Amino acid sequence: MIAEIIAVGSEMLTPHRQDTNSLFLTAGLNELGVQVAFKTIVGDNISHLTEAGRIALGRADIVIFSGGLGPTEDDLTREAAASALGVELHKDPDTIASLYKRFAERKIPMPPNNAKQADVLEGATLLDNRNGSAPGQYLDTVLQGADGESHRKIVILLPGPPKELKPLFTEEARPRLAASLPPRHIATRMLRMALIPESTVDARTAPIYKEFTDINTTILAGRGEIQLHFECAKATQEEAQARVDELTEKIEHEMGEDIFSAHGESIEEVVLLTLEMRQLTLAAAESCTGGLLAARLTDVPNSSRTFIGGAVVYTDALKTEFAGVDPAVITEHGAISAETARALAEGIRRKTGASLGLSITGLAGPTPISTGPDAGKPIGLVYIALADGEDTQVKQVNVIGDRERVRLWATQHAFELLRRYSL
Amino acid sequence: MIAEIIAVGSEMLTPHRQDTNSLFLTAGLNELGVQVAFKTIVGDNISHLTEAGRIALGRADIVIFSGGLGPTEDDLTREAAASALGVELHKDPDTIASLYKRFAERKIPMPPNNAKQADVLEGATLLDNRNGSAPGQYLDTVLQGADGESHRKIVILLPGPPKELKPLFTEEARPRLAASLPPRHIATRMLRMALIPESTVDARTAPIYKEFTDINTTILAGRGEIQLHFECAKATQEEAQARVDELTEKIEHEMGEDIFSAHGESIEEVVLLTLEMRQLTLAAAESCTGGLLAARLTDVPNSSRTFIGGAVVYTDALKTEFAGVDPAVITEHGAISAETARALAEGIRRKTGASLGLSITGLAGPTPISTGPDAGKPIGLVYIALADGEDTQVKQVNVIGDRERVRLWATQHAFELLRRYSL
Repeated sequence: MIAEIIAVGSEMLTPHRQDTNSLFLTAGLNELGVQVAFKTIVGDNISHLTEAGRIALGRADIVIFSGGLGPTEDDLTREAAASALGVELHKDPDTIASLYKRFAERKIPMPPNNAKQADVLEGATLLDNRNGSAPGQYLDTVLQGADGESHRKIVILLPGPPKELKPLFTEEARPRLAASLPPRHIATRMLRMALIPESTVDARTAPIYKEFTDINTTILAGRGEIQLHFECAKATQEEAQARVDELTEKIEHEMGEDIFSAHGESIEEVVLLTLEMRQLTLAAAESCTGGLLAARLTDVPNSSRTFIGGAVVYTDALKTEFAGVDPAVITEHGAISAETARALAEGIRRKTGASLGLSITGLAGPTPISTGPDAGKPIGLVYIALADGEDTQVKQVNVIGDRERVRLWATQHAFELLRRYSL
Repeated sequence: MIAEIIAVGSEMLTPHRQDTNSLFLTAGLNELGVQVAFKTIVGDNISHLTEAGRIALGRADIVIFSGGLGPTEDDLTREAAASALGVELHKDPDTIASLYKRFAERKIPMPPNNAKQADVLEGATLLDNRNGSAPGQYLDTVLQGADGESHRKIVILLPGPPKELKPLFTEEARPRLAASLPPRHIATRMLRMALIPESTVDARTAPIYKEFTDINTTILAGRGEIQLHFECAKATQEEAQARVDELTEKIEHEMGEDIFSAHGESIEEVVLLTLEMRQLTLAAAESCTGGLLAARLTDVPNSSRTFIGGAVVYTDALKTEFAGVDPAVITEHGAISAETARALAEGIRRKTGASLGLSITGLAGPTPISTGPDAGKPIGLVYIALADGEDTQVKQVNVIGDRERVRLWATQHAFELLRRYSL
């Protein structure tokens, strides 16, 4: 069984907006063992939309339309699906009644165009929409193909707003689809690694995952992280789970401590969890990352149990005020130096009373520094230090890329330092 | 002239990856007066891809394929485009030579499958790819339609990686397209506003922009911001610019100071610029936003001229250590209070020597506080204060939504407070 998703809406044909519903729908379909073979994005144009529907019915077993079910003139999905299928639309009396009731409750007369939301494809079941006025539709039918043969087709119409589409798909459409498809049990795992080149991960893991021909492996890279996704379908859940666990174990054996998460957690979450387990608290003094490390940590709920705070110390004066850095260290070695990083980490730890003090100082660009002790240091040069009261580790990294990338990778390096410290 | 974009790659049919090239291509095509009527996303499957190409050639004048031009077995765009067009592929000797040269320079023998990157559609011009090995292709041809008539078709093949596709489109494909299309001059403007409901912006501006029937207006909302995009095409650039400027002026008159930017700058950039013009420096003490405000400001190049730094003060002890807050204020009113916000703003200003001290303290959730002076305060309650040494403004806001939204909107409110202060 293959599916096509048709995302309806002229705004998705502009440079400003993108269809995102299809990612959610694809995940749900994949779990049922259905692959998405085509996605079509089409505007609010009846002939384009009808033609897209006809083409989809010709090449896919399951066709899902998202969007175009509202009350306006631009909402044409019902009409287009009906023409593409060659069926009539009829008005559903219950839907009409509930539309009138909705407007009566708000004490507004119902504009007549709203009634089109009650138009139902012949033979379709209406899917109740808790979060909006337009119901979804589900049609399981048989069409004569161009080959003269009969083909079973499932057509699903869903409203465009994600907060309406998601529950309608999950609660109404998906159980109906599951009931019409052969039972299938899927297990997935995801391994996450930071700061390693994708090609290195692939070179080391491909010989292993390629042996598991019954597991679909995907490698994704971005934002200083590599993810390995495994997916396996079997007759029982236990069997599928055992297979992905077996592969996971082999990859973990190969990649070892390079893997920061085997259950989906982000690196921030892993760092906070491991520090919390060791009953350690953390404070940070950030120069070039300017609060980005703190913002990433505090984005995690309950991070305050571990990350107590810190300082953004762009200027030399603030490095002294908030982290007690001796001005002579900066004058001698520069703000971007191993010595200043060390003094910042030790100082922020002392000032805050945290068990660990972390610091980041570097040059994010775009402008190099032309005078003083940091003159001529390359953009992307970053020092990270971690002080625990006994010992202070200092790491030098050279990040290639623009300001945003230098800042992001600097925080990734800092998280890796923290994670390996608490292993 | 209408266009179709075909994004090629099985990874874009998974729940994990999305086509983004089409947004860039759409912007470029729109500037030439070409509307995108369809986007198709198709996997690395020769029959699916050929069929998608055939359908696109049947309904669009310009067909752009992105992706599938590499050297692997999965790279099938050249073959599919050739079958869809009904033309042959031939090997381009110059491309073969440059591929051999590329490998020779890296002292590796060229794997034989690389030669497929030299396959050229009959009649096509090769587009030189500075950033990768696969050249693009540009074909301007005439096809016999299903209607028996002849139709001019432009087919463009571009590599998938954005850093290859973007320069190839801009430098090679776009000038060729522009030369084949009627000359057109487009002017655009964008107005940005923060924290106002989209419906309010639309109610106030629609009566104005609807009078400008020659201007295409789009309203976009998200992340605490509303954008109004205007686009106008005229015979001369001056005429188009005069029209969008005229509309911009009328909307500016209506919305007044609610507009934070009329030339595309982000709110962070506007705040930093206006403070710099007034020769003011800024420091911040953040509690619930945990560094997000600092991270947003320091993401702007050269922000350090104005934003000197600050502190992330999650714990009560750090509020005292870094911003000199009297512990009695917190005990009496709670950390989430107008009084603490005021003390934080005044204290961070004093400690850092900045001209302005800003503070944010609030409850981002997900867990409410069960004991002490903040017990029972609602999630989303945020206090923001701005101290300039003479006067301290304190603003209370109630943000509805999850942790991420509360944190983001709290920073938006802080930026608005700063912006209106420096007007």
